[in-house]
Amino acid sequence: MPRFALKVEYHGAGYAGWQRQKDQPSVQGAIETALAKLEPRAHTIAAAGRTDAGVHGLGQVAHCDMEKDWAPFRLSEALNYHLKEARVAIVDCALVDEEFHARFSATERRYLFRLISRRAPLTHDRGLAWHVKQELDAAAMQAGADQLIGLHDFTTFRSSICQAESPVKTLDELRVEEVRRANEVEYQFNVRARSFLHNQVRSFVGTLERVGAGAWSPEDVTRALDARDRAACGPVCPPEGLYLAGVTYPVDPFA
Amino acid sequence: MPRFALKVEYHGAGYAGWQRQKDQPSVQGAIETALAKLEPRAHTIAAAGRTDAGVHGLGQVAHCDMEKDWAPFRLSEALNYHLKEARVAIVDCALVDEEFHARFSATERRYLFRLISRRAPLTHDRGLAWHVKQELDAAAMQAGADQLIGLHDFTTFRSSICQAESPVKTLDELRVEEVRRANEVEYQFNVRARSFLHNQVRSFVGTLERVGAGAWSPEDVTRALDARDRAACGPVCPPEGLYLAGVTYPVDPFA
Repeated sequence: MPRFALKVEYHGAGYAGWQRQKDQPSVQGAIETALAKLEPRAHTIAAAGRTDAGVHGLGQVAHCDMEKDWAPFRLSEALNYHLKEARVAIVDCALVDEEFHARFSATERRYLFRLISRRAPLTHDRGLAWHVKQELDAAAMQAGADQLIGLHDFTTFRSSICQAESPVKTLDELRVEEVRRANEVEYQFNVRARSFLHNQVRSFVGTLERVGAGAWSPEDVTRALDARDRAACGPVCPPEGLYLAGVTYPVDPFA
Repeated sequence: MPRFALKVEYHGAGYAGWQRQKDQPSVQGAIETALAKLEPRAHTIAAAGRTDAGVHGLGQVAHCDMEKDWAPFRLSEALNYHLKEARVAIVDCALVDEEFHARFSATERRYLFRLISRRAPLTHDRGLAWHVKQELDAAAMQAGADQLIGLHDFTTFRSSICQAESPVKTLDELRVEEVRRANEVEYQFNVRARSFLHNQVRSFVGTLERVGAGAWSPEDVTRALDARDRAACGPVCPPEGLYLAGVTYPVDPFA
């Protein structure tokens, strides 16, 4: 059975998350349903990151096994045809060898978090960014973020339902970018690691927003990290600003 | 009665356009309803551009007359409170003198049109850009656009229901920008003039897309313009890529 890697983009609103659910719409379920239109049988696909409800995909990667020798371009076109009402799109597709596994072969995940500060409610970006009313101190947020880089026990920034074996992870990048526009400021958090704990990015951003607002100092982030205690975390921020931006493999399947 | 200028941002989906309608939701109607919560009576506001159904506002300007001496910031906050379900937001508000008229004082309107070319359907940008499948030739579109700059009889690019007295207008700018991203190319059309005919920007972009696709030559745009005949226009493109980006006045009320 030929195996295909799929690069998947999706709007997280209206989905209970990536993972297939019995009674609720999921991104995985939407793609598996589309696959069943092409080859009628049960399909099970695997993905690099199982995003939560409301979280978006920009460069999620999944893989599927097919019976037919699909031309990758035709497979993506056929899937997009059946997904066209779903706000889920296959933006790239490639034949990979059977050793490729979207989740286990991945060596890096990249997330983007969009936070928009302005007085007025969001219109075009509603559901696509976290909205806060006060302007934030980007330099202070970066100073707090710098405390988190490297190998740490991230128990503080891990959801209580996280199933990872160990809370010890290496965070490779947490970079805060400020984009000023006419009536708003956007803060983009670019986060990069081999793998993440459940709710880790949203725990980081929720905590750093407190630093940006002046309620926490950058050193409070170090204290929270050192506490290794979930209760020391700042408020976990909402999902709608979070995007799984990309996944790295030893060999890029889409190159 | 103090007069206030409002800078208005809105998502055009779900609205029959700017202008108040008897039986359909409109942006004007949404704002007038919010005004009536603040000062209970009939309100009539005027705007710089009466955008069509599905067209977005980024920097639309309207004015309203109030009985109370509202602090401009408080007025915008109160309106946004009542508009919060509406995807319409007051992003700036200023006291102006009674001679200011959002429509008649305006000396320039700026529009942005977003066209995204990629194979896969849009997800996050659905309803926020016009989607075409083939890649376009930006230089050819710019060459076509250059034919339209200046003082012309724009009968070809004017809807048959246009109520303007004359089809003769001066087009000050029609600049095509290409933005390349991982799996798509976006073409942004930046258009600027003192005033526009009905459907003029969408007639321009629909025609220039034909040039970008190679179906028309840039010289065909000149021939279409010279024909002064609505039938010579290319296909009018859909509204969801169009944004009223900004309005200029002799003195910027928001400065």
